[in-house]
Amino acid sequence: MDQNRYLEVINRAIEELDLEKEPRGLYEPIRYILDLGGKRIRPVILLMACDIYDGDENAALPAALAVEVFHNFSLIHDDIMDRAPLRRGKPTVHEQWNANTAILSGDTMLVKAYEQLLQLPAHILKPALEIFNRTAAEVCEGQQYDMDFEDRDDVMLDEYLEMIRLKTAVLLGAALKLGGLVANAPEEDLDHLYTLGIETGMVFQLKDDLLDTYGDSVLFGKRQYGDIVANKKTYLYLLTLKSLVGKDREMLARLFANQETDPEVKVRKVLHYFDKVNVKELTERTILEHYRKAQAAFHALQIPDEKKQILSDFTEMLLGRKF
Amino acid sequence: MDQNRYLEVINRAIEELDLEKEPRGLYEPIRYILDLGGKRIRPVILLMACDIYDGDENAALPAALAVEVFHNFSLIHDDIMDRAPLRRGKPTVHEQWNANTAILSGDTMLVKAYEQLLQLPAHILKPALEIFNRTAAEVCEGQQYDMDFEDRDDVMLDEYLEMIRLKTAVLLGAALKLGGLVANAPEEDLDHLYTLGIETGMVFQLKDDLLDTYGDSVLFGKRQYGDIVANKKTYLYLLTLKSLVGKDREMLARLFANQETDPEVKVRKVLHYFDKVNVKELTERTILEHYRKAQAAFHALQIPDEKKQILSDFTEMLLGRKF
Repeated sequence: MDQNRYLEVINRAIEELDLEKEPRGLYEPIRYILDLGGKRIRPVILLMACDIYDGDENAALPAALAVEVFHNFSLIHDDIMDRAPLRRGKPTVHEQWNANTAILSGDTMLVKAYEQLLQLPAHILKPALEIFNRTAAEVCEGQQYDMDFEDRDDVMLDEYLEMIRLKTAVLLGAALKLGGLVANAPEEDLDHLYTLGIETGMVFQLKDDLLDTYGDSVLFGKRQYGDIVANKKTYLYLLTLKSLVGKDREMLARLFANQETDPEVKVRKVLHYFDKVNVKELTERTILEHYRKAQAAFHALQIPDEKKQILSDFTEMLLGRKF
Repeated sequence: MDQNRYLEVINRAIEELDLEKEPRGLYEPIRYILDLGGKRIRPVILLMACDIYDGDENAALPAALAVEVFHNFSLIHDDIMDRAPLRRGKPTVHEQWNANTAILSGDTMLVKAYEQLLQLPAHILKPALEIFNRTAAEVCEGQQYDMDFEDRDDVMLDEYLEMIRLKTAVLLGAALKLGGLVANAPEEDLDHLYTLGIETGMVFQLKDDLLDTYGDSVLFGKRQYGDIVANKKTYLYLLTLKSLVGKDREMLARLFANQETDPEVKVRKVLHYFDKVNVKELTERTILEHYRKAQAAFHALQIPDEKKQILSDFTEMLLGRKF
């Protein structure tokens, strides 16, 4: 089954969610953000994981909706915190309505995610909720670390990696694991699926950091150097800072503390330090490490090769390469 | 068992919650709001309901913690939306920290509430979650209506009653029902417990409206006329507005639209209209109606009289009178 089919199934199920309820001020923003679309990566991989163990797609669908609704809840609240004006090219919920609406509609979405989970088969309800609860708390922790880091100038590389694990990777891990759980996958495979999701998430996020500086803006659709201009303490910045000493180190830190510098001048100066420590190659090495861990988890799965194809297609979509 | 014993059990359990975790910026505010104390009405009545059916208090405790943690989650987020500076005489979370922290710590508390529910006995997990989910969504709906009403000048009395049912009463109903559920109370009694909670909550909230204007500020510890000064569309205001016609009606509406008027003058003028339509007596009549519904639900419970005493003590605490 190809990925577009999964996406169709999910989009249809999202369409059918009963959100035409009162009060409109609460439910309209939920419909709005869910209709902004996107690749629906998390629910898609959940259905995939269920599929490769010949699980019942209909039984997995509530879990798929739960992770997608949860993900969008976190986007609404993160966008308030980050004062983001746009999400997928449209006004964010707090811009389109206001911050109060964004808080409350987000809260309701979190409750709705749990409502979905309740529709899972009774025998997996508790383990599914355990995975979901732990993941939801971790995503909040990740967002808190991310905000904390903005005000800190002593963030360690390991702390950064832990932050992106919590903020981004665990939900991918949970999605794959939940899909396997619905399909009664063997216990060890549930662990492998989780690891596969985590490591894929790490690769995905680190690549995102890398592409901002060394990617092709036409190909990746993201404005290059946006992270540098916004003083974002990405993996590249933290790694470069760690590798520099003395005056160089001081200069780079100052460039990221300053809001005033001309963007073009700033980017040129920062790139000088990035290149000086060879940050591109070093980051690619870290990405490769996580890719290899994902690959190992993938190969450990006790499934026939033709099933592996499904997941391999997905990693190609997400990472640009197959296992 | 007296109410203080229930309170002690709950406070000890709250103390023992593991919140000394990282990141501190996320978990400290949770500890802070939970330690502000209060009467813990919701978890107390949950344990009571369990007790009157000879249920296992330890089995009910996670549900009691869940409703208390949920209640405090809603306080944190409501306080942001209402721009409230104080909560129980201390700075609100968004004042003590900031709005972002208040959003994210609140989110985490909602997840933690579900975490508690997962510790309930397996056979009641699903029905307990169903009650909780529905209630949680309704509380959000109530808050949305409350905010909507601020900008509307055509709020009907029935809409107001529905708003306070959602915002305040359903959580009391859910608490009593969850307590009965843990104790395997008969199905009809679960419905009666729910109704008892709902109607008690209605009485409680309507009394709150009444006391702002006709209460004794020394006895009730709340500044009198605060609702009038803040243009709050309480039951008293809406009922008076409905009962007035022509120029009187216009004048009252104008008084509540105006931020400029001298508070003392405004209160005197508003009281004139309140008294003109006899709003005190009319409100007392509505309160009595809800009190009678609560009483009927109370008497319908299939429990021995000595058990009824426990709940009657509680209504005295909450409403100032026994059933």
